[in-house]
Amino acid sequence: MNLLLLERAEIDPLGRARVRERRAEHLIGVLRIRVGDELRIGVIGGPMGTATVAQVANDRVDLEVRLLASSPPPPDVELILAVPRPKALSRVVQHAAALGVRRLDLVNAWRVEKSYFASPRLDLPALRHHALLGCEQGSTTWLPEIRVHQLLLPFLMNVLGPRLAQAPSPRCLLAHPESEQYVEEAAPIGPGEATVVAIGPEGGWITEELASFTELGFVPVALGRGVLRVEAAVTALLAQLELCRRVSARKSSDGGFGCP
Amino acid sequence: MNLLLLERAEIDPLGRARVRERRAEHLIGVLRIRVGDELRIGVIGGPMGTATVAQVANDRVDLEVRLLASSPPPPDVELILAVPRPKALSRVVQHAAALGVRRLDLVNAWRVEKSYFASPRLDLPALRHHALLGCEQGSTTWLPEIRVHQLLLPFLMNVLGPRLAQAPSPRCLLAHPESEQYVEEAAPIGPGEATVVAIGPEGGWITEELASFTELGFVPVALGRGVLRVEAAVTALLAQLELCRRVSARKSSDGGFGCP
Repeated sequence: MNLLLLERAEIDPLGRARVRERRAEHLIGVLRIRVGDELRIGVIGGPMGTATVAQVANDRVDLEVRLLASSPPPPDVELILAVPRPKALSRVVQHAAALGVRRLDLVNAWRVEKSYFASPRLDLPALRHHALLGCEQGSTTWLPEIRVHQLLLPFLMNVLGPRLAQAPSPRCLLAHPESEQYVEEAAPIGPGEATVVAIGPEGGWITEELASFTELGFVPVALGRGVLRVEAAVTALLAQLELCRRVSARKSSDGGFGCP
Repeated sequence: MNLLLLERAEIDPLGRARVRERRAEHLIGVLRIRVGDELRIGVIGGPMGTATVAQVANDRVDLEVRLLASSPPPPDVELILAVPRPKALSRVVQHAAALGVRRLDLVNAWRVEKSYFASPRLDLPALRHHALLGCEQGSTTWLPEIRVHQLLLPFLMNVLGPRLAQAPSPRCLLAHPESEQYVEEAAPIGPGEATVVAIGPEGGWITEELASFTELGFVPVALGRGVLRVEAAVTALLAQLELCRRVSARKSSDGGFGCP
């Protein structure tokens, strides 16, 4: 836990907050906090800040909270992910939240095993819990909005399509090991420009699914020379996007990518 | 399994190979191969090729192998990794092998829990097994050379130092969330240039360890805005390096990074 996250409603008008259970246990048992210690905190979907430990009891920690005036900007990436095997799902959600995604749409696909949808790991409270752990790890207050879609085509037609039609339209990328293009070739990303990335099941999207994404404007990109497992693909793509964004932000000042 | 890996010694002078156990079970049970099917294969540390399925029995598969004349170039990244918690170790080894590393040195550090060294997951055969799974996933024949070092300083002084002193000296990067620089700023990487990357324990390196790496020429780089778990950090760093390398290879032809 690199950032203690609080709900807005947990902070009273005098700036006091009390945490119990998992967070209190972690603060007491792992971080071994004491009265007077300062902690980095954040309000979910809101500003970061600091808190002073006012009291430590067996099962609770009382904090005095000071918040910064403004919230960090939301992440500019949305992730569409074919539901991975349940064992990988919780980790993927954590990694994605730690790297920063504004929204996570978990979708069905032809090569997603139907049994995955019966997993309790796909319940929204479980997904939210792992996203919270990821935000605590990655020190971000932006908890992704998570949705599960049992049918791919209605999601693409009725949810994603209308969203993409709104200006300014985001860059849309589809991870595809057979693509000849990498992220920076396929989709130059300006500073602050929104991106939607789609990552398929481990067997890949089928041709019809690829066609549906392409119709919506998605450009296939390879993440490297091989085929990655889904958890590695999510991290690799988000990390490469972050690097592109950094480069493009620098480019306006000093002329660009430092490679010889 | 995107590539079936064979040991050189498994292929007889007539180009026939027989696989059993895990590989045969996967070919038969998961990939459902039949006589006459063509498979992508590779020789560990050697060339890729194809194989025709000659016979399928209960517990074995016989193959007729055709190898390409030359081997793919070895990966140009070496990874130094503070031993992660055992549950993450096998996954990290798989992801690193899939992304392609020439060598993996697992090292001790002040903030590595000493109990990790007692884990059977740190035995070389277990590490090699997970590296093989990673190579099969990432379609590479380059199985990383893996070493475990119980003491950090002797490794840095007696093993790494002399290796770095040999020309041409590689770029050396150290993942460090507090760095102001990203990969492409800290270390412009020419095509084919070797890189050594070091990733610390989840609590980070201590000051003295950072100093030892810096003395050897390691440059700290951040992978993004937050702090990542070790498995995400390994994937993120290797994926960003791969992107840098691709950009620098393209740069000679068309002038560089495509961001606006």
